[in-house]
Amino acid sequence: MKTLAEEIGPSNRPVEEVARRARTTSAALAMLSTECKNAVLLDLARQIDAGAETVRAANERDLAAAREAGLADAKLRRLALTDAGLKQMSDGLRQVAALPDPVGQVTREYVSPAGLAVRRVRCPLGVILMIYEARPNVTVDAIALCFKAGNACILKGGREARRTNEALAALAGDALAAAGVSRDAVALLSTSDREEIRRMLGLRGWIDLAIPRGGRELIEFVHEHARIPTVQHFQGVCHIFVDESADLARALDVCATAKTSAPAACNAVETILVHERIAAAFVPRLAERLARDGVEVRGDAAVCRLAPSARPAAAGDFGREFLDLVVALAVVRDVDAAIEHIARFGSNHTEAILTESSDHQRRFVERVTSSCVLVNASTRFNDGYQLGLGAEIGISTSKIHAYGVMGLEELTTQRYVVRGDWQTR
Amino acid sequence: MKTLAEEIGPSNRPVEEVARRARTTSAALAMLSTECKNAVLLDLARQIDAGAETVRAANERDLAAAREAGLADAKLRRLALTDAGLKQMSDGLRQVAALPDPVGQVTREYVSPAGLAVRRVRCPLGVILMIYEARPNVTVDAIALCFKAGNACILKGGREARRTNEALAALAGDALAAAGVSRDAVALLSTSDREEIRRMLGLRGWIDLAIPRGGRELIEFVHEHARIPTVQHFQGVCHIFVDESADLARALDVCATAKTSAPAACNAVETILVHERIAAAFVPRLAERLARDGVEVRGDAAVCRLAPSARPAAAGDFGREFLDLVVALAVVRDVDAAIEHIARFGSNHTEAILTESSDHQRRFVERVTSSCVLVNASTRFNDGYQLGLGAEIGISTSKIHAYGVMGLEELTTQRYVVRGDWQTR
Repeated sequence: MKTLAEEIGPSNRPVEEVARRARTTSAALAMLSTECKNAVLLDLARQIDAGAETVRAANERDLAAAREAGLADAKLRRLALTDAGLKQMSDGLRQVAALPDPVGQVTREYVSPAGLAVRRVRCPLGVILMIYEARPNVTVDAIALCFKAGNACILKGGREARRTNEALAALAGDALAAAGVSRDAVALLSTSDREEIRRMLGLRGWIDLAIPRGGRELIEFVHEHARIPTVQHFQGVCHIFVDESADLARALDVCATAKTSAPAACNAVETILVHERIAAAFVPRLAERLARDGVEVRGDAAVCRLAPSARPAAAGDFGREFLDLVVALAVVRDVDAAIEHIARFGSNHTEAILTESSDHQRRFVERVTSSCVLVNASTRFNDGYQLGLGAEIGISTSKIHAYGVMGLEELTTQRYVVRGDWQTR
Repeated sequence: MKTLAEEIGPSNRPVEEVARRARTTSAALAMLSTECKNAVLLDLARQIDAGAETVRAANERDLAAAREAGLADAKLRRLALTDAGLKQMSDGLRQVAALPDPVGQVTREYVSPAGLAVRRVRCPLGVILMIYEARPNVTVDAIALCFKAGNACILKGGREARRTNEALAALAGDALAAAGVSRDAVALLSTSDREEIRRMLGLRGWIDLAIPRGGRELIEFVHEHARIPTVQHFQGVCHIFVDESADLARALDVCATAKTSAPAACNAVETILVHERIAAAFVPRLAERLARDGVEVRGDAAVCRLAPSARPAAAGDFGREFLDLVVALAVVRDVDAAIEHIARFGSNHTEAILTESSDHQRRFVERVTSSCVLVNASTRFNDGYQLGLGAEIGISTSKIHAYGVMGLEELTTQRYVVRGDWQTR
């Protein structure tokens, strides 16, 4: 039997119609009260806590199809919706409900030289198109953040999670409808037809922002076809540079856990650079620790001499997002060589320096212009919750609009509201 | 004889080489001291005040060529560089020098849950490409703002002003060189070859932001070909709605001067909407005043009945940026009809309501989401100086990154700098 979402889902409509409905609804969404928006989010959280049987059943069918298609174990694990995963979704919804409503916030207020009362006010962007490949919980995070920021959203998730995402979007539609909000506030594109996505990316004037979040192929497809504004959430090729003055025991912990705590996260370390003066002392210990933690090390020539367990790095291993228990490891001459390496191979996401030298800290922080640069801390702290911003829709590697962690505020824009006393000019 | 700029200008280099040089220089520009940046701006201002003979001579040649090509008088006036125009340029440079340096500004500072010292810090975007059609003074404003914000800029001005722009860029290059800064910080594309511009717009990773500023054809060309982030400065189809409760004598002044004070400015009013209850009293007076001020009125049927001097509006006159002493004038049922008209014909630039009704003020301000919405004041106040922000590079009609007036801050981005105490995660 087909689910409701499959019967009447937006996939049965042309993409232009989906966008037109989202655009039409967005004007009303911009004026929803905070109470109404929070009620929808909390209702959806309750539905998920109450069992979400339609979602579980849909996920079972996605998993069965994925197993049949021979999907790798790691991908199956990402697709599978556990009790903990559902709990994380409803917790996320409650957290977004608890965040301050950005819409209507006055960010600046002053009287202009001509005596005008000027206010800069946050307002929704309008319609947000999100194209992603990640786990189904991203679907719920995106719905929650876009809606709370007063935007209509059009979501295009990964093909393998299609049924799960449809069931989640249908639950969201029920919560919207129960609060008297149009179901068009959340649209899920079930199509995987590239031609349809391409047409969607051309709907200038209907869609205010496209957020592609994923790997190189997805990002390149979007850049090639988008005629609408785009902020990319591209890969995190994150580096840690271990300087000569680093506390080696603590550096060992920072480096190893920056990979092992979440090997596939975008803020996990992918390349570790070690100052040549401490290489003989540090590289063998680090290689041993990583091996013990199940991490494969791909080293440059100097590393392979110092740690025979390391596998020689192939061309392309530096600058690569492994998304797995693998790191690249290289010895560099000094902090400047590390900065140069990052300029060449980094992805503007997250980099860290481990050092006691305040000179080198300053130099690294000034010259490495990634969205987040850390001193003596793990790259894994570049995350909305860890930085204290609450939920995030991802981490932007585009410099414009929002660079780095993108939360509620970054899903809005600001306009000027000016009150005069019949001033002419 | 060729000018120096014509001999060795960037136009003789492939656009890829221009972008590569700008990218290479941008790392150093990001670290320039405020003193050094201001010294360059003030030096350039002094050179312009000292006579700027090369610029005047180049402008003469542009004017001669334009006259030969049969350019309209209005365009010739925009192209001609007067003493007052040169004074405006040097004043603008001094004003930008006096503005606070946005680079390095800390916009947020706090301790994260894990005890990390988090700072959000402004940094340059990197390389900005600006494509525009306007007067030569935009060239100097763009150079000043991009440079003060720590960016390299690549400018593509209008074809008719080519020699003038080259002479201005050469002066800027001299000021940069005198301060020990690479001339590559400012590049002027002298080419008008569409294929070269198209290639420039494809240089993803080399150019961080393209700002097209101009009419429909330019904007569409950029949207079609850009593979780099873009914030458009498109036309201002600005509306004033005169509500039933407006003070008619003062409304007359606001409406008329909003066109006559600068007919070709993007914040000049293009369409005036009048509430039907006051149409009989107001439309004839407004039509008479506008006629007296030399403004042609194109009216809908109701207007033409009330003011026989009005010419019937053609299809397309509503929603049109006349850039001249012409306005469209229509009678509408009420504030909601005015809001609908603006939603249909507006360009997200600037709209005003003239009314004593606080209900209608609120309704208009809530529902019209243009970059600047004014109550009882002229649309002409949507301007960097008038809003107290200082110099502007233009007014963005893109919602992302910077919506509305775009000044120094909007030419930067923000990143996170995080200092830890060896926290792992």
